[in-house]
Amino acid sequence: MSKGSAKVLSFWSSMFGLRVHYALDLKGVSYEYQEENLFNKSKELLEANPIYAKIPVLIHNGKPICESLIIVDYIDSVWPNPHKLLPEDPYKKAVARFWADFGDRKVYDAGSRLIRATTEEERKKASEDLKWALMKLDEALDTIAPGKPFFGGDSMNFADVALAPFICWFKGYQKVGGFVLPGPEELPNLHKWVNAVKSVEAIRKSTPSLDKVAEFAEVIRKRAIGSA
Amino acid sequence: MSKGSAKVLSFWSSMFGLRVHYALDLKGVSYEYQEENLFNKSKELLEANPIYAKIPVLIHNGKPICESLIIVDYIDSVWPNPHKLLPEDPYKKAVARFWADFGDRKVYDAGSRLIRATTEEERKKASEDLKWALMKLDEALDTIAPGKPFFGGDSMNFADVALAPFICWFKGYQKVGGFVLPGPEELPNLHKWVNAVKSVEAIRKSTPSLDKVAEFAEVIRKRAIGSA
Repeated sequence: MSKGSAKVLSFWSSMFGLRVHYALDLKGVSYEYQEENLFNKSKELLEANPIYAKIPVLIHNGKPICESLIIVDYIDSVWPNPHKLLPEDPYKKAVARFWADFGDRKVYDAGSRLIRATTEEERKKASEDLKWALMKLDEALDTIAPGKPFFGGDSMNFADVALAPFICWFKGYQKVGGFVLPGPEELPNLHKWVNAVKSVEAIRKSTPSLDKVAEFAEVIRKRAIGSA
Repeated sequence: MSKGSAKVLSFWSSMFGLRVHYALDLKGVSYEYQEENLFNKSKELLEANPIYAKIPVLIHNGKPICESLIIVDYIDSVWPNPHKLLPEDPYKKAVARFWADFGDRKVYDAGSRLIRATTEEERKKASEDLKWALMKLDEALDTIAPGKPFFGGDSMNFADVALAPFICWFKGYQKVGGFVLPGPEELPNLHKWVNAVKSVEAIRKSTPSLDKVAEFAEVIRKRAIGSA
């Protein structure tokens, strides 16, 4: 499985960083990990990602790859086995990319606004947007993979890896943003998906404690509202 | 070259839409075109892209593909010949994706703010950001393809197709946003790239008139500042 040295620069609770861990762990690739201090970034990170100065970065054989979905795509090309993430079929591949991108545009965006909301109006809007996004994911699962647990059918694919990191933030969304995740009667496919993702060994391995993530969400909130 | 029916729903001056035209035209794929009225979208568009209700959409054999970069990726998978856009090498592919994505995040974003600026401060900031983005593209060309005209070296690749649509907006940025494109002495690689892109037959074929785009930029501006 070795194809040279791989190193990940990231931050433990980053949804974007978790995508990289999940992809590498699903492939069984061993790698070095470097935790970044986001308020005092390492010289290595600044040199590896001079455009955005953001985690995650994968450094593979000395070459930096930036942007989480591009990194997951790269990982899938370099280590196609034993678990291919991007479908071969062009349409299925486009669908997987679409829902991965939806994670950034809609799920992450709404969750981020929820945690940082400074007024009840902002909080309510973000909460509604997050609920809408989760309903769309529930519908998409039913359309793309009816009766199956994952976007990828019986196993996780590119969309699953992109979206799975949001799961460990739900407790934070609840504690900090007052978001109530609708139950299985309202979002049956999403709940089935969450349970299926949580049962994957490679995912469990890299997922931080939900309580720790919720505490960190509180830290972000305090900074956002200027009380920290 | 035929692999079933292809139809593009788009809007003539959309940078995102132009990517789809450029990719199909570089491949020599024939397709039907449907111009959308963005203020009165067709039922077909709303059904094909229920999540975002946005152009461009490619409908291939009855199946809709949404989001311009995902569409270009799809086109490259379905019609890999005679002009492959995504490099086979995983690192080169990641680099091409990175700069395509940079187009959305930095070039489009700055240009959009420039046209819609309602204060001189906003206009100046957007203008500086756009200049910065173009400088980064100039540097990137020199790093990725030294001495070559395109991000793809001797021919256009995924990054070139993603970034080429910005070229026909420069006149609009200038007329509406007062943006002065730095000359070849300051951005030698970018100017070489612009000239090379403009000389590609498939690009010329689909590129709208610069004056018409500039007029349309004025329309957007008037709507943005509330005087239309």
